[in-house]
Amino acid sequence: MTPETALSTLRDQAPLVQCITNYVAMNIAANVVLAAGASPAMVHATEEIPEFTPVAGALTINIGTLSEPWLSAMKLAAQTAQGGNIPWVLDPVAHFISDYRRRAATDLVAQQPAIIRGNASEILALAGVAGSGKGADSGDAVEAAEDAAKSLARTSGAAVAVTGPVDFLTDGARTARVAGGSALMPKVTALGCSLTALTGAYAAVTPPFEAARAALAHFALAGAEAEKQASGPGSFQLHFLDALANVQPADLEKAVLI
Amino acid sequence: MTPETALSTLRDQAPLVQCITNYVAMNIAANVVLAAGASPAMVHATEEIPEFTPVAGALTINIGTLSEPWLSAMKLAAQTAQGGNIPWVLDPVAHFISDYRRRAATDLVAQQPAIIRGNASEILALAGVAGSGKGADSGDAVEAAEDAAKSLARTSGAAVAVTGPVDFLTDGARTARVAGGSALMPKVTALGCSLTALTGAYAAVTPPFEAARAALAHFALAGAEAEKQASGPGSFQLHFLDALANVQPADLEKAVLI
Amino acid sequence: MTPETALSTLRDQAPLVQCITNYVAMNIAANVVLAAGASPAMVHATEEIPEFTPVAGALTINIGTLSEPWLSAMKLAAQTAQGGNIPWVLDPVAHFISDYRRRAATDLVAQQPAIIRGNASEILALAGVAGSGKGADSGDAVEAAEDAAKSLARTSGAAVAVTGPVDFLTDGARTARVAGGSALMPKVTALGCSLTALTGAYAAVTPPFEAARAALAHFALAGAEAEKQASGPGSFQLHFLDALANVQPADLEKAVLI
Repeated sequence: MTPETALSTLRDQAPLVQCITNYVAMNIAANVVLAAGASPAMVHATEEIPEFTPVAGALTINIGTLSEPWLSAMKLAAQTAQGGNIPWVLDPVAHFISDYRRRAATDLVAQQPAIIRGNASEILALAGVAGSGKGADSGDAVEAAEDAAKSLARTSGAAVAVTGPVDFLTDGARTARVAGGSALMPKVTALGCSLTALTGAYAAVTPPFEAARAALAHFALAGAEAEKQASGPGSFQLHFLDALANVQPADLEKAVLI
Repeated sequence: MTPETALSTLRDQAPLVQCITNYVAMNIAANVVLAAGASPAMVHATEEIPEFTPVAGALTINIGTLSEPWLSAMKLAAQTAQGGNIPWVLDPVAHFISDYRRRAATDLVAQQPAIIRGNASEILALAGVAGSGKGADSGDAVEAAEDAAKSLARTSGAAVAVTGPVDFLTDGARTARVAGGSALMPKVTALGCSLTALTGAYAAVTPPFEAARAALAHFALAGAEAEKQASGPGSFQLHFLDALANVQPADLEKAVLI
Repeated sequence: MTPETALSTLRDQAPLVQCITNYVAMNIAANVVLAAGASPAMVHATEEIPEFTPVAGALTINIGTLSEPWLSAMKLAAQTAQGGNIPWVLDPVAHFISDYRRRAATDLVAQQPAIIRGNASEILALAGVAGSGKGADSGDAVEAAEDAAKSLARTSGAAVAVTGPVDFLTDGARTARVAGGSALMPKVTALGCSLTALTGAYAAVTPPFEAARAALAHFALAGAEAEKQASGPGSFQLHFLDALANVQPADLEKAVLI
């Protein structure tokens, strides 16, 4: 499915996307998913996951602001999704900052996410390669993580998206690169987390590699559009949400380089 | 009390409103209450509810992003408010998605909220009628929930507000409809939750039916005003907060249809 | 270090600032720190604090939306920071509203914060003087809290910042006052909490008194700049983030009165 068809389908179906994400991203990620045309559901109680996750179109899990009750919910939701053939997306935020988080990321990868999205430092670390990340920021170039992404895709079975100035996407065999976006994007908190949520929305309507490619293209185009009107990170965020809603399906073809 | 007088009183008194709401809504709901002219307090620790709730002007409870520690806090706060004659407002977000949430909503209704606010699917389900809700979105028309709202108002003793393109409000005897707003409102996350918080602010200064009517009118007018200047959901949110602050008391009369 | 040099240094080093803050502030505080030029990390799991806090440039703790698991994390992080000579900043939000919160604030002060930032009512109460605060709002003038701030600075060893229309800062010996800002600032939720986070960013690059002075100056200038373009609290927030990013180091000298 092309990005163009994927966006049309997403807007027609408005799929329900369960997002278990961090406190910082909760509001902006929901707004990103809504602006794009899908229906976000921030549900994380272990009491309702067995009943709710199976009716979602997709699930996304992001380990920022991790703590024990949330990790239990994430594991249960991932397991439920995996058992029910619900595609799910993993965002291993800054998982290299502690043993606790490293283990969390490793345990979640074992639940067979359909897509893994991270910055270069996160993907390098997840593939077992030393990087230079600092907190939630990448200290490594996307290009330096391409081999790690391919290797991670092969071992995990997931499509792996490494985001940065030019995004890299692979399922171990195919690759794609998506350009665009804006230098202001890393200046707005939780946009990467929000991209993960949007990737989940696409995963509800099209297979993993196509879903990630469409989400990357949608984000890159909206970012480039927003930059034209922004005077800083505050106005960027506002124009970005507007642009996510206003991007037309046919526009998405322009963003994908390879 | 007319909506006009209610808004004047709200701005004069700047009542303290305790809001126990979900993670998605926390920031925008506080900003909505502040912009309108009241003072929000996001307090949910069971350790401080017995001391804090009795000094609040009103309490609002929203069960989005529910989990066990929060549910305990909600029940204690509702009980404390009810025992202390503090009016409180219930927002039974998507309570039909799981047994866990359904029970939570039912248990909270038993604590005699002064006002219940929800979309049509939520109010239908709370009145025991099958609806077509999906996640946090309503799958039913407001008109289809009018009888359910009246029935719920009579059995619960609460004023019941069903929000949508034209809002419906009833206390079982009286009814009101409020028009206005914007088609962009469902594209911004947690605006319904924020309306619940604002309803609490009004409930601190005027009786339940009048409070809900004033809050609906204030929201509808600010929404219509914001739409004039918005280019999408991002810019809508910004203009909406500005409009909530800039609406004058006399304007509120324009919004109420019946 | 002058505010000018402090901001240049902050932007050169982009220090990692661990922020344990409330749910309302989480997103806007991260955006404020990012816009200013530093790198926020919202990390609060007790499982990773022993490993993460020692690598942060500074730590900030804000007790809004307090609950027991968060209080444990705050105490552990404060202790870890104090033991590792990591400067940390305390924001005792509304600590006078309950015994629970009062004890939390007192226990945290005992962990030797480098800086304490609060409104007049919060600083008065922390110094043991009765004030007139209501929820998160100050009911007292900054001027009325100057003696309390000096006394608190001497007993705690912290630089104490009392924020309001004109901010007051003291380390018990030196004092400074910072003017500017905007009357719209109290109409946007969590801006005070975000100032605390920004103060932490400066504390990572310069000693406490200088750090607080630079943060106050940066905030005041950005606030005054944003007000020029704002039509209400919604647009203010957007222009404020833009202005935080666009303020140049040399501008900071203009804000400090004494």
